[in-house]
Amino acid sequence: MEAVTVHLGDFSSHMRELSRGFLFTLVIGTTDTSLVPGITIAGAKPELTHYTPAADAEYLVLGRCQVIPTVPMTPDGKPTPALITRAVIKLTGAGVLVVNAGARVRPNIPIIDLQGEPGRDIRTGLAIDRSIVDRVFSNGVILGENLARVSGAIVIGESIPAGTTTAMAFLVAMGYDAWNKMSSASPVNPRDLKIAVVKEALRNAGIDKPLEDPLEAVSRVGDPVIPAMASIAIGAARRGAKVLLAGGTQMAAVLAFIKHVDRGVLNNVAIGTTKWLINDRTADLIGLVREVAHVPVASANLDFSNMPYEGLRAYEGGFVKEGVGAGGVSIAAISKGYSINQLQEVILSNYEELLKGMGNTA
Amino acid sequence: MEAVTVHLGDFSSHMRELSRGFLFTLVIGTTDTSLVPGITIAGAKPELTHYTPAADAEYLVLGRCQVIPTVPMTPDGKPTPALITRAVIKLTGAGVLVVNAGARVRPNIPIIDLQGEPGRDIRTGLAIDRSIVDRVFSNGVILGENLARVSGAIVIGESIPAGTTTAMAFLVAMGYDAWNKMSSASPVNPRDLKIAVVKEALRNAGIDKPLEDPLEAVSRVGDPVIPAMASIAIGAARRGAKVLLAGGTQMAAVLAFIKHVDRGVLNNVAIGTTKWLINDRTADLIGLVREVAHVPVASANLDFSNMPYEGLRAYEGGFVKEGVGAGGVSIAAISKGYSINQLQEVILSNYEELLKGMGNTA
Repeated sequence: MEAVTVHLGDFSSHMRELSRGFLFTLVIGTTDTSLVPGITIAGAKPELTHYTPAADAEYLVLGRCQVIPTVPMTPDGKPTPALITRAVIKLTGAGVLVVNAGARVRPNIPIIDLQGEPGRDIRTGLAIDRSIVDRVFSNGVILGENLARVSGAIVIGESIPAGTTTAMAFLVAMGYDAWNKMSSASPVNPRDLKIAVVKEALRNAGIDKPLEDPLEAVSRVGDPVIPAMASIAIGAARRGAKVLLAGGTQMAAVLAFIKHVDRGVLNNVAIGTTKWLINDRTADLIGLVREVAHVPVASANLDFSNMPYEGLRAYEGGFVKEGVGAGGVSIAAISKGYSINQLQEVILSNYEELLKGMGNTA
Repeated sequence: MEAVTVHLGDFSSHMRELSRGFLFTLVIGTTDTSLVPGITIAGAKPELTHYTPAADAEYLVLGRCQVIPTVPMTPDGKPTPALITRAVIKLTGAGVLVVNAGARVRPNIPIIDLQGEPGRDIRTGLAIDRSIVDRVFSNGVILGENLARVSGAIVIGESIPAGTTTAMAFLVAMGYDAWNKMSSASPVNPRDLKIAVVKEALRNAGIDKPLEDPLEAVSRVGDPVIPAMASIAIGAARRGAKVLLAGGTQMAAVLAFIKHVDRGVLNNVAIGTTKWLINDRTADLIGLVREVAHVPVASANLDFSNMPYEGLRAYEGGFVKEGVGAGGVSIAAISKGYSINQLQEVILSNYEELLKGMGNTA
C-alpha cells in the first residue's frame, strides 16, 4: 500500500510544496454543544470536553499537559491524536503555532489570539455573535497572509469537541446534504443524536432555506474553529501558499466557508486526513467534498494493527480516527521523504513516554 | 556613505541570512513608569502612552489605528517610527507577527500572547510578579524555537513607552554602568528625571549590589518587553536562527538578559538600529554593548534631510530616532538588496497616505 492515498484531484503540487518544509497551525476552540451528553467522547465527562483543546495544544507543544493533571489519554490507554501530531512534527522539525479561535480553557503556552469567543450550544440558534465572527475572520485572514510570507506550505489542524456536529449544522445551513456523512471520534457514531441537535439548532436559528453568507451561518449554528481555519486558509492561499486542511469531515465545512467567500483561492487548498477517517463507513468525507468543491483529498495510511499496545491498536477499531491535524502532518512528513515505518516508530516511542507519565500520575 | 554602517563585530553572517528572507516580530508591552510626567514623548499625555504600543502594532499590520481615532503622528506631523517599519516590511514582503508581552491596551489584530502582564511603575520596586516573568520567559523560548523552524533570520522589534528608563534600571540592577548612556525619543533627553526614577526604583527594590538573575531584575525594576524579546531571541538562536535585536539602547538590556541566561547563543545575536540613534550624543549604545557582550552592532543610514515634509525632516533633528524595529527592518531590507533610496521612497509615500488620513479625521 502507498504511504499516501489520493482520493480526489491532483495532489502533486501540494506534495511538492510540502516537501520543501511546512508550518503547522493548530486552531483550538470550544462549543457548548459538546456539553450535550453522548455527543462526543473527547473528554471523560461533558464538562471536561472544554479542557480537551487546551490539553491537546499543551501536549503538542510541551509534551505534557498543564490544564489537566494527567496525560492526554483514556484510563485504558487510548491516546489523543495529538500523540501522532507531536511525534511526526518532532521528526520533521516543523514549526508549530497554536491559534485560539475561541476556547473556554486557554493553554499555558504562547498562543495566537484571533479575539474570538467560545461557541454557545447551537441549539440556541445563536452560536456566536456576528461581530465576533467578523473579528475572527478578519484577524484570521491577516494571520494567514503573514504565515504565507514565511512558509510556502501551511498545514492547519483543529481541536474542538463536538466539531462534527457544528460542522454538520453549518453545512446544512449552507444548503449541503451533510445529514449522514459526518464522522465521529467514537467507533459508534451517535448520528441520531447529532441529527436531532442540528435540527433543533436550525429550527431555533430560523433557517428554513439555505443561507448564502457563511459568516452568518457560523454565527447562528457554527463554531469558532470553522471561520478561523477558513480565514487563515484564505489569507495564506491568496498569498500563494499551499494550504492543507488537516482533519476529517469538519474540513468539508471549512471548505464550504472558503468557497462562499473566495472561490478563487480553492486551487491552493487541499484536504489531508487519515486512513481511519476514510474507512469510517458511517461517514463520507469524499462525498461531502465532491458536493462542496473538488479540491484534492489525500489520506495517510498509518497502520497501528501491529502496535504492541491495545491503546494504539484501538485506532484500527475506529477510536478517534483523526484530530489535531494528525493525518495532515503525517502526509506532510511523507511528502518530505519519511516512511510510514519511521512515523509509526516515533509514534510508538512517544506513546511509551506517555505511558511512563501515566504511571507517575496514577 | 554606505547604506549600513557596522560599528562593532562581524555582521556578515547576519547579512547573509537576512538576504534569504526574514520574519519580523514586534513585541509590545507597557510599564506604568510611562505615566511619570515628562519621562516619554511616546503619547500626547502620560495616560495616552498606554495606547501607543497597540496603535503602533495596528498601524504596522493594518495601515491604520483602531484603538485611537487618529493617525499615529503628532499634531504637527511627526510620525511614529512604525511608519518606517510598515513601509519597509511591505517593500520586502516579509511576514509580521505581533507579540503581546504585557500591554494595558491590546490591539485589534491577531496577536501572540505570552501571558505576561503590564509592568507597574518601577519606583514601586515590584515591577512584575516573578511568576509572570517566568511564564513570559518560558513562553517566549517556545515561541522563538518555533519561529526559527520557519525562518533562518528573525528580526525582533519593540514598542514600550518609557522603555529606556526601565532598561536603564534593569542594566544598573545587573551591575552595568548605564547611567548616562540611554537614549530617548525626545531631542531633549530627560536624563536627570530618568536617573531619579531609576534610583528610587533600585532603592525601593532593595537592590544595593548587582543581581545575578535577570528574571529577578526584571521582576523588581524591569518591564515585560525585556524578558519577552530576550526569550524569543534565546529560543530562536538556540535553533540556529540569526537574531537581529532591532532597537536602540534598550537592546543592551535585552542583550544582558540573554547573556546571563545562555551566553552560548550570543554568536547568533546582533543589534540593528538607525543612524539617528547612533548619532544621539546623550546616549552610548556602542559603549553599552561593549560593556555587556561584544555582539555585532549595525545601523541603517536612512537620511530624511531632503524629505519634502517637516515632520519627516524632524527625524534628522533627533525626534523619535528609533522604535518598532525601524532600524533593524531597514538593515534587513538592505541585506536583501534594496537601496536606501528605495526605502526612503516607500517611507515618503506611506507618510503621504498618513497625511491624507489626518485630513479625513481632522
